[in-house]
Amino acid sequence: MGLQDDRGFQVHGSQRGVSLVIEGGTAITMARGGASIPGARMVVSDGRIVDIGRISEVPLPPDSRFERIDATNAIVLPGLINAHSHAAMTLFRGFADDLPLKQWLSEKIFPAEGAVLNPETVYWGALLGCLEMIASGTTCFADGYFFQDQTVRAAHAAGLRGLIAQGVLDFPAPGVPDPRENLRTARDFLEKWAGFSDLITPGIFCHSPLTCSARTLREARKISREYDLPLQIHLSETAEEVREIIRQFGKRPVHYLDQLGLLDRSLMAAHGVHLDASEIKRLAETGAKIVHVPESNMKLGSGVAPVAAMIRAGVTVGLGTDGCASNNDLDLFCEMETAAKCAKVFDRDPMSLNAGTVLGLATTGGAAVMGLEAEIGSLEKGKRADIIIVDLTAPHLCPVYDPASALVYSANGGDVRDVIVNGRILMRDRKFTTLDADEVMGKVREIGKKIGS
Amino acid sequence: MGLQDDRGFQVHGSQRGVSLVIEGGTAITMARGGASIPGARMVVSDGRIVDIGRISEVPLPPDSRFERIDATNAIVLPGLINAHSHAAMTLFRGFADDLPLKQWLSEKIFPAEGAVLNPETVYWGALLGCLEMIASGTTCFADGYFFQDQTVRAAHAAGLRGLIAQGVLDFPAPGVPDPRENLRTARDFLEKWAGFSDLITPGIFCHSPLTCSARTLREARKISREYDLPLQIHLSETAEEVREIIRQFGKRPVHYLDQLGLLDRSLMAAHGVHLDASEIKRLAETGAKIVHVPESNMKLGSGVAPVAAMIRAGVTVGLGTDGCASNNDLDLFCEMETAAKCAKVFDRDPMSLNAGTVLGLATTGGAAVMGLEAEIGSLEKGKRADIIIVDLTAPHLCPVYDPASALVYSANGGDVRDVIVNGRILMRDRKFTTLDADEVMGKVREIGKKIGS
Repeated sequence: MGLQDDRGFQVHGSQRGVSLVIEGGTAITMARGGASIPGARMVVSDGRIVDIGRISEVPLPPDSRFERIDATNAIVLPGLINAHSHAAMTLFRGFADDLPLKQWLSEKIFPAEGAVLNPETVYWGALLGCLEMIASGTTCFADGYFFQDQTVRAAHAAGLRGLIAQGVLDFPAPGVPDPRENLRTARDFLEKWAGFSDLITPGIFCHSPLTCSARTLREARKISREYDLPLQIHLSETAEEVREIIRQFGKRPVHYLDQLGLLDRSLMAAHGVHLDASEIKRLAETGAKIVHVPESNMKLGSGVAPVAAMIRAGVTVGLGTDGCASNNDLDLFCEMETAAKCAKVFDRDPMSLNAGTVLGLATTGGAAVMGLEAEIGSLEKGKRADIIIVDLTAPHLCPVYDPASALVYSANGGDVRDVIVNGRILMRDRKFTTLDADEVMGKVREIGKKIGS
Repeated sequence: MGLQDDRGFQVHGSQRGVSLVIEGGTAITMARGGASIPGARMVVSDGRIVDIGRISEVPLPPDSRFERIDATNAIVLPGLINAHSHAAMTLFRGFADDLPLKQWLSEKIFPAEGAVLNPETVYWGALLGCLEMIASGTTCFADGYFFQDQTVRAAHAAGLRGLIAQGVLDFPAPGVPDPRENLRTARDFLEKWAGFSDLITPGIFCHSPLTCSARTLREARKISREYDLPLQIHLSETAEEVREIIRQFGKRPVHYLDQLGLLDRSLMAAHGVHLDASEIKRLAETGAKIVHVPESNMKLGSGVAPVAAMIRAGVTVGLGTDGCASNNDLDLFCEMETAAKCAKVFDRDPMSLNAGTVLGLATTGGAAVMGLEAEIGSLEKGKRADIIIVDLTAPHLCPVYDPASALVYSANGGDVRDVIVNGRILMRDRKFTTLDADEVMGKVREIGKKIGS
C-alpha cells in the first residue's frame, strides 16, 4: 500500500485465531462493578479478550495452537495507561534536577533540546521511553512532543498503544523553526497517521495557554475537531502561570479556555494543580479531562492537584508521569503510590484516594481521558487484550491481604513479569520481545554524551 | 561461652584477611568533602574497608585469596540505613490501608497484634523484613517493637547490622501483659544483648510521650544511660497528639521531653512532623536527633516534617520507612525519592532537599542518628565494610548524568545487585546468601492467613 510506503514501515496485523490463554492468577478486572477474580482464565483472540472468568467457568478453546501463560502467584491487570508523557525526554533524565520550573525549562531543558533534538535523537529517546514503559507495565501512553513521526515510529517498533501528539506553540520549536508552520505541521501529522493502525492515534498538543495565542489555540481546536481527535494541553501547572493568565486575560485558565471554546470531552489537560472550585465545576460540566502528574508537580515544587475534589465533582481524571526530565522515570506503579500518599497528606485525610481509586486513575481513568474507554482500561470480554501480569514472589509483596493494596502501596514497575498489547506479547518473563534493550540504551548513552558535555 | 548458650546461637566473626576487592564502578563515598570516584577500587579486610580510591591508585593485595566483585556499569555506595522501622510488621503489610492513624491503630493494628504476635510470628515477620531490606540495599536498621529477642535473632540470621530496641509503654504490651514489667523487660533485653556482637546494638524504644508516663520516660532514660545506648521514641507524629500533650502537660512535645531531661545526643525521635521553630532550635541545641519517615506520614495523612528547616538549624536527621503496615514497604530508595519530592512541594521550593542531601539522610545521617558515624555511613578507609552495588543496566537508569540523581530520582530497591555487611556478602547478583527466601515468605504467608481471616 502506498500509505505504508510513504511512512516507511509495515502495519502489524493482530494475530488471527486464539493466540493466548492466561490462567491461574487473581485478575483485577477494573470492570464497572466487577470484583477481582481469583483463579482466573482469560482467552485472547484476534487481539481481543474473548472470554474471562474463573477457570471452572471458562472452557479452553478447542484449537490447541495458542500460547499458555501461567499466572499462578501473580496478579493479572489491565495494562497501565500513562495519560501524559514526553517519551523522548528520557534523553534528559537526571540532566537538570532540583531547579524551579522556569529556570529548569529556560536555562536547561530548552537549550539542551535546541542543541540535540533531531529526528534520530527523538527516535532513540522515544524508544527508550517505550522500553521503560514496557518494563514497568504501561501498555498505552499519551505523548506530546516534537518530531512526533519518530515517536510514532518508536511506539510502532515497540508494539505499544499510543495517542501521540505533535507539539504546537508560538515560538520556534524543534523541527519547526518558523512558528507559522507549527499548525500546518500538526495538521500534516494528523493527516499522515490517522487510520494508520489500531494502536496509534495521532493528536495535537498545544504547549500551554501562555505559549500559544488565542488564535493558535482556536485553530488547533478546529483541526482536531475536523479529525475527531483529542487535543492535549498543559494547564495550571504553577501558581505563577495562573497569575500571568489572569493578568493577561482577566480570568483563570479554565475560564479562559472556556471562552475560547476549548472545553469539551476531547480536551486532555495535564497538571491542573491550581484550580479553584469554579474551574473544577466547569471542567465537570463540559467533560474536559485532567491528567494528574503528581511526581513531576512535586519535584518542580509546583503544588498538588486537588484530585479527590475533582473526582467528587465528576471530572474524568487519568494519571501520567510527565517527561523523565522532571520525574525522573516512567513508572506508573510508583506514580500510583505517590498519587495516593500525596492526596492523603495534602487533604489531611488518610481515606483520600484509596488504593482502588488510584488503580482506577491508571487504568479506566486513563482510558476515558484518551477517549478509548470502549477499547481499553479494563479486562472485559470484547475489549482489546492490553494485559499485564505482576509477579508476587518478591519479599516486598508478601503477604497479600488485598491485591489492590499490594499493587499501589508495595509493588513497583520491576515486579511486572509479562506485558501484552493488542494480544501481542511485548515482554515475557521480563525479556523484551520487540526491542533490543542493549541497542536502545547504547544509542541513548551516546546521545547523552553530547547532552552532558 | 555461656552467654552464647543462653542466647542459643553462635556469634559470626568477621572474615580474617583480605576478603573482597570491589572494582570498576563509580563509588559515591559520602565521605565529608569526598567526591565520587569513577573507576574505583575498594579493598575489604577483616570486615573493614582498608583501601579505597581509583583503580590506578589502589594496589591489589598480594595474597590472591579474595573474592573479586566487578562493579562496572554500577554505582558502589555505602549501605543504606533505615533509622526507624518495625521489621516484624511486614506481617501486617497491606492489612489495613486508607484509615486515620487512631482508627488504624486501635481498630486494626493493636487487635491484630494482640491476636497474632508471639515469639515465633515476630521472628518470621522480622526475618521477612530483613530479607526485604537486604533485597533493597539496606544494611543497617533501627527497630522498635516487642519480643525483640526475636528481631535480634532474625537480624543475626540475616547478617544485618541493627540497633534493636525493646518497646516500652504503660499498657499491656505483646509479651508483657503487666505494664509494670515493661521497664524490667527492657533492662533485661539490654543486659542480654549488650556486647553480643559487632553488628547488634540493643536499645529501648519508648512508644510515645502519651503512652509512656513521665516516670516511665525518665526511668527508660536512666536505664539507657547506664548502658550508654540510644533511646528511641515516636514524637509529634500527628497534630492531634501535639494538642493532647499541650493539654496534659502545658507545653509542646519537645519542650515536655526537655523538661524530663530526655533531650540529648542519644535521643532518636521518629516523625517530628509537627514541630515549631522553638522546638527545632531546642533539638539542635541539645543534639537530639530526628528520623524522617515521609511515606508513613503521608499515608496516614499526618503531615510533612519540616526537614529542610531542621537541617538548616543543625539538627541531625536520618531517614526511615516506619513499619510495613503504614508504608507499605521497606525500600529506602523509594523513601529517598519521596523525601526529596515531598520537601520540594511542601516548601514550595524545588531546590529543597536535593539529591545529594537526601542520599546523606539515608547514609551519613542515619549513621549519626544511631551514634554509629565513626563506623558506618560512608565508604572510607577504616570504616566497616557495609557496601551496596547498584546496577545501572535497567532502562529507567539510562542515561546517567549524575549518579546521585539516578539513585534518588530513578532507582528503586530492585536495582540493588549486591549487598555486603561487615565484609560479608548477604546478596550477590540478587541471590540471597544468608536466608532462604521461599521459606521465609512461606512462613509469613501462613501467619498471614490467620491475620487476614
